[in-house]
Amino acid sequence: MLQNQKQPIIVLVHTQMGENIGMSARAMLNCGLDRLRLVNPRDGWPNERAVATSADADRVIDGVECFATVAEAVADCSRVFATTARSRARQIPAVEVGDAIAEMSGEQGECAVLFGPEASGLDNESLSHADRILDLPVNPEFSSLNLAQAVLLVGWEWRRGCAAVPRQMEAAASKGDLATFLARLEDELEKGRFFPSEEQRPETVRNLRALFGRATPTDRELRMLHGVVTALTADEG
Amino acid sequence: MLQNQKQPIIVLVHTQMGENIGMSARAMLNCGLDRLRLVNPRDGWPNERAVATSADADRVIDGVECFATVAEAVADCSRVFATTARSRARQIPAVEVGDAIAEMSGEQGECAVLFGPEASGLDNESLSHADRILDLPVNPEFSSLNLAQAVLLVGWEWRRGCAAVPRQMEAAASKGDLATFLARLEDELEKGRFFPSEEQRPETVRNLRALFGRATPTDRELRMLHGVVTALTADEG
Repeated sequence: MLQNQKQPIIVLVHTQMGENIGMSARAMLNCGLDRLRLVNPRDGWPNERAVATSADADRVIDGVECFATVAEAVADCSRVFATTARSRARQIPAVEVGDAIAEMSGEQGECAVLFGPEASGLDNESLSHADRILDLPVNPEFSSLNLAQAVLLVGWEWRRGCAAVPRQMEAAASKGDLATFLARLEDELEKGRFFPSEEQRPETVRNLRALFGRATPTDRELRMLHGVVTALTADEG
Repeated sequence: MLQNQKQPIIVLVHTQMGENIGMSARAMLNCGLDRLRLVNPRDGWPNERAVATSADADRVIDGVECFATVAEAVADCSRVFATTARSRARQIPAVEVGDAIAEMSGEQGECAVLFGPEASGLDNESLSHADRILDLPVNPEFSSLNLAQAVLLVGWEWRRGCAAVPRQMEAAASKGDLATFLARLEDELEKGRFFPSEEQRPETVRNLRALFGRATPTDRELRMLHGVVTALTADEG
């Protein structure tokens, strides 16, 4: 049952301490998860402290994949969740962890869950790659979870949810294909003088990415969106 | 609501490392638990390392009660659960954590959950004070949980067994405003000869509505989308 259920990929973004990577790997394997990606960990990779604290979760540690950016780490993923204690990502819908697991089980493409650095959490650029905020409803008066503890709760809920009935959904397009569309849209918007200033441009692009990412378009819908841009930018004869 | 739900008492037995006491205190308060008892911790009490790793979970740390034996620590409790990875306590019935939480909520007296030392788990003398083994169904091939992680899972399940916390999100734009945007988009697409035929047009419009509706844009995002259409359809000067 668990074997047939595709695992979410755990993505640790800009993690500072190797101990937290090791403890996360251990927590993952406690829950039967072994797909771990790192985005630019502070102390590089491989990391001795991570190995020492992983309690021999070798299957996770040996399989770690490293990336320079969040965009690259989730390029092959269809659905991306972000964990954050902050409510600053108001344009991204939040789903409670149990509902997030249900969404994952209905998704045919790869799913990823992003975890930010210990001190600061995910920044806005990283958050803009997420379709959903994954909400861990802990004590609102003391909500700061240790990184590996947050990873454990996601893994635990995944394991608990594996017995639930999966829903069928059309696969979402890959983040890479979505990025290609968004880059094209940005180009065309530049030509149309959409951006008031160069300073505001990155935030506006993030807002667009958040909006379209949230819709999790399928391949078919992404082709439709390309068609929309083509039609809107066509010279009227 | 959570306040009305009586908390189980967390009992850490012969804990070796202060760090694990501190991390357990943090995990407890993450879940709204603050009643911590220690049985003969290796390095005594108070413990600087415990304070340092508790992430200011002062309410838990300051309220710690110390006991010399398990018997004394659970003397005022009506129901005692023991967590153990070992199946050596065959004479004590095991209950899955969710069922254990349900039993706690039906119990009028005090409930306690025992956690053993890091290296060895609870010994038979400690186990003999438990009415139930509390089973945390993790990966049977990699079942050794860090102490604070085990405490977290019990706290999490206790919290989940109580009520969920309401979520806050920016309000979505009205369906009327979304329809106005979609009507404008349809007009512009018509001008750009987007629709292959009049017959296909209604379905294509429905597909667009489904896609944008799924994103549930806010008022601010709807204004951004209007801006996108304006920019894309602008004559390039």
